[in-house]
Amino acid sequence: MTTRVLLPWSDLSVPDAISASYYDGSGTPPEVDDVEFYVLPYDSGPEPPKLISAMPSLRVVQTLSAGYDNLVPLIRPGVQLANGRGLHDLSVAEHTLALVLAAQRDLPRWFEQQRTGRWSRAHTRSLADARVLLVGHGSIGQAIERYLRAGEAEVVPVARTARPGVHGIEDLPELLPSAEIVILVVPDTPRTRGLLGAAELALLPDDALVVNVGRGTAVDTAALTSEVTRGRLRTALDVLDPEPLPAGHPLWTAPGAIITPHVAGGSASFYPRARRLVEDQLTRFAEGRPLLNVVV
Amino acid sequence: MTTRVLLPWSDLSVPDAISASYYDGSGTPPEVDDVEFYVLPYDSGPEPPKLISAMPSLRVVQTLSAGYDNLVPLIRPGVQLANGRGLHDLSVAEHTLALVLAAQRDLPRWFEQQRTGRWSRAHTRSLADARVLLVGHGSIGQAIERYLRAGEAEVVPVARTARPGVHGIEDLPELLPSAEIVILVVPDTPRTRGLLGAAELALLPDDALVVNVGRGTAVDTAALTSEVTRGRLRTALDVLDPEPLPAGHPLWTAPGAIITPHVAGGSASFYPRARRLVEDQLTRFAEGRPLLNVVV
Repeated sequence: MTTRVLLPWSDLSVPDAISASYYDGSGTPPEVDDVEFYVLPYDSGPEPPKLISAMPSLRVVQTLSAGYDNLVPLIRPGVQLANGRGLHDLSVAEHTLALVLAAQRDLPRWFEQQRTGRWSRAHTRSLADARVLLVGHGSIGQAIERYLRAGEAEVVPVARTARPGVHGIEDLPELLPSAEIVILVVPDTPRTRGLLGAAELALLPDDALVVNVGRGTAVDTAALTSEVTRGRLRTALDVLDPEPLPAGHPLWTAPGAIITPHVAGGSASFYPRARRLVEDQLTRFAEGRPLLNVVV
Repeated sequence: MTTRVLLPWSDLSVPDAISASYYDGSGTPPEVDDVEFYVLPYDSGPEPPKLISAMPSLRVVQTLSAGYDNLVPLIRPGVQLANGRGLHDLSVAEHTLALVLAAQRDLPRWFEQQRTGRWSRAHTRSLADARVLLVGHGSIGQAIERYLRAGEAEVVPVARTARPGVHGIEDLPELLPSAEIVILVVPDTPRTRGLLGAAELALLPDDALVVNVGRGTAVDTAALTSEVTRGRLRTALDVLDPEPLPAGHPLWTAPGAIITPHVAGGSASFYPRARRLVEDQLTRFAEGRPLLNVVV
């Protein structure tokens, strides 16, 4: 008897004991009565998770996202849920560096000059030697830290609770006044909403850069907009609240603002890592060994 | 008897045995009859080097640039010339990463969308896992390599002559066809001029990224322009030939081109390192110890 798995890619290396069907999230899904292991297509909207309730033989749901809150209500007893923790780390870290370097090295200015064929030089800030407050020190935060240290930034990590070498979140007010750059990489929870509000932003030194690659709710958008539009702070945001920002919102065109449309996790570095994880999980499942990344 | 040094900064920490005057390259220089140690102001045009011939007591010229060819004819016997090797390494490496990440993570596209308040997402390329041909493996090339490796790129170094782990330049034709990214960080010499000509560029795979942060002459601009304007290759250039490009040159506005105005070396990370070098050199000079970075 072979295991039926439903996979998003038809060219994955699958163990002999496993028979596979394919569903990439578009069009009509195949028959799912026998599916025991369902790998959700990544970033494919609300339809794919709905299939879960139509799978009577289901034993495992594998999401390729790190976040899984939306799936928990769909997981009935006897079904394991495994997530994509770690898969996006490098992609998000890379995009974070892209944002920080673009801001510190004045790329928007040079791209603007390029549009009119203007050659005008100036010295810029740098990431090297800058004191960077890194708020969020999980798997993705640690990947960001490694990249920042390679760039010789001075990294000050902050996590929910203090541990050796890492400040607890209660230290934030005393750390903000000396931070040239703040990077937020925290999930959306009651404790992180509005983490950087008007009071916290006011503690930052003039010209500080606020970067958010976690969830938009961690920053008070109105307070940040006020500081950036009057030129006191700069910002680079891949996530926003609301997301997307409405047309005409002043942050879109503020000179000190860089906005990218929630693309930090979606790059070419993600798929090879996602496929390797799924191959490993299928082998474990076929061999009766524990799965990785089980969250429910 | 105290040593007279001519420095570009008035707030440097100077040894007791040394008396200092200041000249930052602008305005009228002070009296230079007694100057024994002259630290040229950085990136300040053709005037400061002319003072060298007016310094009868001169024993040391310290340039803060890595390049010094233009100064050699001015150095008479008995005078040492020390250069700024290493000072710009991190600044150039950082700008190189800024260019590569901007290209791979589609920053020009997002900045363009930002100008019209448009939110439209897409998956991008990445630097991670990309095979990067790094042509030039001196002090700056090695700094670039460290940064690239932190980003989990696959780095293939190429130098003038082969050594363990590093290809010689004669291997270039066999390495180009598998390079997703080529980074040039070579000086301008008879051997490097036109290193990437039409034939070499044609060997690169479709969609490859050509990055130049060394000297513009290493790339045949016309050949590169042809490949980029027809959309086969992409490019990110901090140096050009001619430099600057004339107004109206098609590379300015080609969608696959990023151009920055020779700013890789001039960032905030440079000055602390330059000042530390000069402080060290002055101490060595005052104590009669050998100087660093002596090139003539």
